[in-house]
Amino acid sequence: MGLLYTSIRVKDLDKSLKFYTKSLGMRIVERRSWIPGEKTVVLVSGDTKQKIRLMWYSKTCRLYTPYKENGVELDHLLFEVKDAKKAYDKLVKEGAPVAMKLFENGVTMGFVKDPNGIWIGLIS
Amino acid sequence: MGLLYTSIRVKDLDKSLKFYTKSLGMRIVERRSWIPGEKTVVLVSGDTKQKIRLMWYSKTCRLYTPYKENGVELDHLLFEVKDAKKAYDKLVKEGAPVAMKLFENGVTMGFVKDPNGIWIGLIS
Repeated sequence: MGLLYTSIRVKDLDKSLKFYTKSLGMRIVERRSWIPGEKTVVLVSGDTKQKIRLMWYSKTCRLYTPYKENGVELDHLLFEVKDAKKAYDKLVKEGAPVAMKLFENGVTMGFVKDPNGIWIGLIS
Repeated sequence: MGLLYTSIRVKDLDKSLKFYTKSLGMRIVERRSWIPGEKTVVLVSGDTKQKIRLMWYSKTCRLYTPYKENGVELDHLLFEVKDAKKAYDKLVKEGAPVAMKLFENGVTMGFVKDPNGIWIGLIS
């Protein structure tokens, strides 16, 4: 339970993968596509076990947003919780804005925004 | 050795701390100020041990940057390495732009930019 990784948007997945694996020694632990036009790679750092997730979106993907200078690098932070519906409802009740409504898709998942507008994923 | 945490900029440290501790169950593991007008809090997530670092800068701090909508949320990713000078020189040689020149300050530390312009810290 808790934070699983931080997730960053990348412009060129190959370039970023090369950088984080070859140059910085991280290891790929998961690689897949969740929705059309999107690619996801989860990386772990050898000794410290800290994880990041690289997300690439094509321009036709429904989640695509132009990548600005000082832009949308931070995609989201994902927290694993016991009961995503309960956690989501609690956060919304406490005033967190909804970023993406709770949905069921094998897992239960929803997104709210933190005090700075950063997307916070809740999954169970 | 490896990634220590991801670091995000916050507008209001108390609000963000309340959110990540009370609402999301993270625990404070380090709290200090490194330079005038700056405050740092490192948080860890119970079971997963994943860490994030919150950074707050006053408007008079030399590292202050206006926080935009879809802004500078991602402050940097920090990698612990055996020899920061060696790692820094290697990355620069491989084409990574310099973000902050290598310096000695009890630790050896420098920052380069990843393929998306994200600051990558190297520390030993």
